[in-house]
Amino acid sequence: MSATPAPFSEHMRELVAGGPPELPVAWAEWERLAYERCSADARAFVEGGAGTGATMRANREAFERRRIVPRVLRDVSARSHARDVLGMRLAAPIMLAPIGAQSLMLDGAELASARAAAELGLAFAVSTPSSCTLEEVAEAVRPLAPAPKLFQLYWPDDDRELAASLVARAEAAGYDVLVVTVDMGNAPWRPADLARAFVPWTRGLGIANLAADPVFRGRLARPPEEDPEAALPAFLRAFSNPGLHWEDLAWMRETTSLPIVLKGIQHPDDARMAVEAGVDGIVVSNHGGRQVDGAIGSLDALPAVVEAVGGRVEVLFDSGVRSGSDVLKALALGARAVLVGRPYLWGLALAGEDGVRAVLRALLAELDATLGLAGYASVDELSPAALAPLA
Amino acid sequence: MSATPAPFSEHMRELVAGGPPELPVAWAEWERLAYERCSADARAFVEGGAGTGATMRANREAFERRRIVPRVLRDVSARSHARDVLGMRLAAPIMLAPIGAQSLMLDGAELASARAAAELGLAFAVSTPSSCTLEEVAEAVRPLAPAPKLFQLYWPDDDRELAASLVARAEAAGYDVLVVTVDMGNAPWRPADLARAFVPWTRGLGIANLAADPVFRGRLARPPEEDPEAALPAFLRAFSNPGLHWEDLAWMRETTSLPIVLKGIQHPDDARMAVEAGVDGIVVSNHGGRQVDGAIGSLDALPAVVEAVGGRVEVLFDSGVRSGSDVLKALALGARAVLVGRPYLWGLALAGEDGVRAVLRALLAELDATLGLAGYASVDELSPAALAPLA
Amino acid sequence: MSATPAPFSEHMRELVAGGPPELPVAWAEWERLAYERCSADARAFVEGGAGTGATMRANREAFERRRIVPRVLRDVSARSHARDVLGMRLAAPIMLAPIGAQSLMLDGAELASARAAAELGLAFAVSTPSSCTLEEVAEAVRPLAPAPKLFQLYWPDDDRELAASLVARAEAAGYDVLVVTVDMGNAPWRPADLARAFVPWTRGLGIANLAADPVFRGRLARPPEEDPEAALPAFLRAFSNPGLHWEDLAWMRETTSLPIVLKGIQHPDDARMAVEAGVDGIVVSNHGGRQVDGAIGSLDALPAVVEAVGGRVEVLFDSGVRSGSDVLKALALGARAVLVGRPYLWGLALAGEDGVRAVLRALLAELDATLGLAGYASVDELSPAALAPLA
Amino acid sequence: MSATPAPFSEHMRELVAGGPPELPVAWAEWERLAYERCSADARAFVEGGAGTGATMRANREAFERRRIVPRVLRDVSARSHARDVLGMRLAAPIMLAPIGAQSLMLDGAELASARAAAELGLAFAVSTPSSCTLEEVAEAVRPLAPAPKLFQLYWPDDDRELAASLVARAEAAGYDVLVVTVDMGNAPWRPADLARAFVPWTRGLGIANLAADPVFRGRLARPPEEDPEAALPAFLRAFSNPGLHWEDLAWMRETTSLPIVLKGIQHPDDARMAVEAGVDGIVVSNHGGRQVDGAIGSLDALPAVVEAVGGRVEVLFDSGVRSGSDVLKALALGARAVLVGRPYLWGLALAGEDGVRAVLRALLAELDATLGLAGYASVDELSPAALAPLA
Repeated sequence: MSATPAPFSEHMRELVAGGPPELPVAWAEWERLAYERCSADARAFVEGGAGTGATMRANREAFERRRIVPRVLRDVSARSHARDVLGMRLAAPIMLAPIGAQSLMLDGAELASARAAAELGLAFAVSTPSSCTLEEVAEAVRPLAPAPKLFQLYWPDDDRELAASLVARAEAAGYDVLVVTVDMGNAPWRPADLARAFVPWTRGLGIANLAADPVFRGRLARPPEEDPEAALPAFLRAFSNPGLHWEDLAWMRETTSLPIVLKGIQHPDDARMAVEAGVDGIVVSNHGGRQVDGAIGSLDALPAVVEAVGGRVEVLFDSGVRSGSDVLKALALGARAVLVGRPYLWGLALAGEDGVRAVLRALLAELDATLGLAGYASVDELSPAALAPLA
Repeated sequence: MSATPAPFSEHMRELVAGGPPELPVAWAEWERLAYERCSADARAFVEGGAGTGATMRANREAFERRRIVPRVLRDVSARSHARDVLGMRLAAPIMLAPIGAQSLMLDGAELASARAAAELGLAFAVSTPSSCTLEEVAEAVRPLAPAPKLFQLYWPDDDRELAASLVARAEAAGYDVLVVTVDMGNAPWRPADLARAFVPWTRGLGIANLAADPVFRGRLARPPEEDPEAALPAFLRAFSNPGLHWEDLAWMRETTSLPIVLKGIQHPDDARMAVEAGVDGIVVSNHGGRQVDGAIGSLDALPAVVEAVGGRVEVLFDSGVRSGSDVLKALALGARAVLVGRPYLWGLALAGEDGVRAVLRALLAELDATLGLAGYASVDELSPAALAPLA
Repeated sequence: MSATPAPFSEHMRELVAGGPPELPVAWAEWERLAYERCSADARAFVEGGAGTGATMRANREAFERRRIVPRVLRDVSARSHARDVLGMRLAAPIMLAPIGAQSLMLDGAELASARAAAELGLAFAVSTPSSCTLEEVAEAVRPLAPAPKLFQLYWPDDDRELAASLVARAEAAGYDVLVVTVDMGNAPWRPADLARAFVPWTRGLGIANLAADPVFRGRLARPPEEDPEAALPAFLRAFSNPGLHWEDLAWMRETTSLPIVLKGIQHPDDARMAVEAGVDGIVVSNHGGRQVDGAIGSLDALPAVVEAVGGRVEVLFDSGVRSGSDVLKALALGARAVLVGRPYLWGLALAGEDGVRAVLRALLAELDATLGLAGYASVDELSPAALAPLA
Repeated sequence: MSATPAPFSEHMRELVAGGPPELPVAWAEWERLAYERCSADARAFVEGGAGTGATMRANREAFERRRIVPRVLRDVSARSHARDVLGMRLAAPIMLAPIGAQSLMLDGAELASARAAAELGLAFAVSTPSSCTLEEVAEAVRPLAPAPKLFQLYWPDDDRELAASLVARAEAAGYDVLVVTVDMGNAPWRPADLARAFVPWTRGLGIANLAADPVFRGRLARPPEEDPEAALPAFLRAFSNPGLHWEDLAWMRETTSLPIVLKGIQHPDDARMAVEAGVDGIVVSNHGGRQVDGAIGSLDALPAVVEAVGGRVEVLFDSGVRSGSDVLKALALGARAVLVGRPYLWGLALAGEDGVRAVLRALLAELDATLGLAGYASVDELSPAALAPLA
């Protein structure tokens, strides 16, 4: 398979021509099988959300309430999905969300995910708690250039030096965008993990980036590979930042030349403040319903944020996307691109890199089919008018 | 049974007089048994919808939200259901929707369906991907004249000559109306079919009309019966038309003297454009929820379309009709007639022509009973006032 | 047990004092056990509704959406439930709805139901298709005078003489009120019955009143007991009246001195016409969801009818009442009294007359408890202000 | 464990550090296991509500409909939860609701519950039908001073002398607040209890306070321990007060110097009257859905009450709280503190005092985590703006 993405409808044609596929087609089937096959720890960590799961349900309900009103007899024979997002050229406005501890699903998961994304012309976001270093990921996709890639930063608590070190490494490794996660100030209440006493970094998962960082290593009396127990508090501090504030952002703005995107905005006032703070974009996200239980569905938060931003910076969307139809709805409501999370982990769980590729190709094929059947020849034609008013 | 429809309530009397019937009465029972008995391919193809099935659910929810407010003490002893629709005299404003590949349910399905409809004075729509030719269907119902019938055209991609050939054949065979489907520009994402690698025309299903067409045969190096494999791309092209545009409609308007109806309208602006394009009618339809996942419920789209059309052409309704009460609701909201789809396939699956007849007689009997009990002596008295305002 | 109703809370005290009762307490348990124990025909007939059951569900949802807002610190130590309804003194504004073919549940059901109601000071409505004659019912409750009672008339199709005969008999037997059912013009579509080919009068059920009527007997060549088959068409005609019209009402108004109540009104315009026709009351009812599928929930229809009537005649309520809390809600929305149907059949099925008594005592005890806890010392204090505005 | 509450997030850290815990983490799991393990009588009494349980469902739905909109990049590293409520200093605005007959779950339950609350700096409310005397509870928490505590009074019917005696004892024992329950005028209709003929005080449960009261004992011919049967009517009278009226409140206001709180308000007019009656606070509560079936969800009643009170007295909230996210929502809508009921009984059922402590620590940890992740450094920053407008 070449690095040039095949026409999206090719996936559907191959499915039909190839006989019943070994991998699932329906999203519900991907999900069911993936959780059946992965470990109990992985399932609890990936499937679980904050508290009672009300925010995860709200994320889905927000999509269910939005309804596409298809248009007809417009020439949709040549459909266009490519889009420039935050300076990256994407084959479609879809990114792989930064997800820590992917190695729960597969050893070297980030390499597989990143390669699958790059082959299809989509962007991949490496998380701070990655199980490979950001340099290893960059190296893995180098043959598939341009391979658009983002580095997601969990800003270490009260430690600008470590933050700067991580960001400098991302710059050096050729990352296109810096994503600063702002909805993880303190540890969330996730009963499924707590009932298993499961925290990835206490199991040696997702620590590669930090363990390789010279500043981080300098914080420790002995190297983490020699005394893992002693390094644990430092790892925990590095993934939490309750004191993070807008001033830190201003400092980061001076520190890096990368475009900065804030991930985890839900309120229009925060979106306005982000614009004023000089960021290049925001991601409307509630972290897949994993932080606050009983929160607003992320898609329900999108329209007010888009309005507040008024086109001054790019608004991306995350949390709850499960299908090509969902992608279309988020784009119609003003998202410049959408981030997909759990679905690609299902791909990893069932078939590694092939699985991620199959998931992404299905997503692209469904988006393409839905776009055409809804009467749009390009993702750039989408607007709120593509949807029925909320009842 | 004669071609003159018996009074609709006769069906209920016969049910009571005849002892417990072998065929189901409740619609849920028809559905359950039909899917139990038909092949897995047939079930996946007929039962399945686009994506997660959200549009199919929206179709039903749209009916559930509408509520009839019955009136009393009006003389409903003589109830009238007959209506002229698109120049055809129908015993009731009900048509059998065009459905391809009916032979999945029964060999020669279209002949059985068409005969059952004609006997009851209802119209039957032959689809392009029929398993019998349109001429065979016309022949089968000739003894039951007038046997109102429509020909549904999947406009072959960029091929006016083939389209003209099919329409000319329909004219010659005595069809009353031409239905141009406009919501099938490209292949939809239907997971149940894709997971089985099932496309009817790759199995030799629903190709009769094209295989018999001189223009289509002219497109092939060798006749399709001699080299089916080689003919496949031509079949696929013939059932897809992403480039179809309003200009094609204008050309068709010049080409045929048949009334033209566009099937697959959901947006009032498209309805207005259809009127301006000179069509004779439109069918508000989302293809039974089989094209766009997450689309508006078809009945939810009806009122705005009826208002936009303003009586200038006839507005028919399709997608989600499952009972006589549903028929009444769609008529009350302004549909000139309703198209029924899956239910008659259930009849085919359980008892062939007898099954279709039983389904249609039940639908008519329930419509008749509901009409009278709601206080209306004629379908022509129905208006939005028959329903409660939406909460 | 005397004919003087015990204080309603006595029932709760006896339940507690008597140890775990043999009969159910929760309404869901009454329903479950009753349908488990009665015959399959009885279950289908009693439990079933029109079509898909959507109207029955709407009846319940209408109650679920209404919410009581309790008041506190009002003296509710002496609670008053008695009310004059249509000239009858009732211990509480509750009546047993007219239900035909009760003998499906128990031989001589009407006698048991009527006695249980009379003992508790509640009214009983005898239906035309009763399994005992109206004279037998009157006789059975005579020792329990005053035993308020209504006669429900299915107006025989185009046969004023037979209607007059039935009404004259009711007058002679001391009935207090004539209830004319107006929502049964033609036979409804009830799949559960049709699938069993079940119509009560074809099984000899519910024909006592007609079989004993001199006018009806005069219509037959031979007495019905000698040639039941030949009498069937006459029975069927007697329970259906699609031609019934407001003029017939005017005639009936001249014919009888009994108060006339129309049962089956849902639309405010029909309520206004009823007032103008000179009736003494109306019953807002959709026949327990047994006539029109997909109709408005009966409680949803009540407020507009109450407003349209404006106090000029008494408005009663029927359809969906399943608890004392439901009774309170209907009274708060303006019902002068409520009719309870299926629940007392559950009592019949489980324990005959004792069962009906237990059901009614539970209903009264729950109404009484709820009234006091909601802060009302009398049913006459209830108004729409007792409920939260609809969301 | 000391009486000084550990930082709330300590609980989460201990959960993770301690390996998979023996007690549940998810609330649904606490509930499931607790009802599995306790006696059938206890389950029926604790789990059951009034009538069909509609009010309990409404309590939960009211929380589900409210949605938190998180804020970001505010410094939440030092989070503050302490609050003065009705003159008591609480570590967090959470109280243990007064619940009678806790000994159903555990012998000496109140002592365990009160100790667990006091250790964590939360208030405990002793109910009149406690299984320990109010003096014993006060004694048990004395080493944990200040141990804020409330005495809940079921005002005995028409018996101010007994009421005064109970209140005087509470004053003498050092209680901080008097809670007068006003939503229990008469016995509610609770099918689960009635079907078991279960009333706690007929089983000798929850009678300690009265049995120890000199005025109550003076009402009896023989001491209750010698002739329990004869004392029963007196117990029943003591837990019911249908004649209670605002005048009684005025008298109580003169009688005690304790702050008075009315528990069981749902209507804004009653809240206004309470303010005018000179009380110090009210508890918006529907008694956990145990009194009126079909009542408004308690959280739905809160905003109008808060507005009606206008800050003149403190408004507390009760009924339906099941998580830290729920606590935050109620506080945001204006509650000065929330009362938690059933959840601490689950703790009692599974592990006695340790169980209550685990439940409360989880609730505090989840509140703390949610507060920070929602962007609030203090419970005092919460306002309705923390929630999305109701759809």
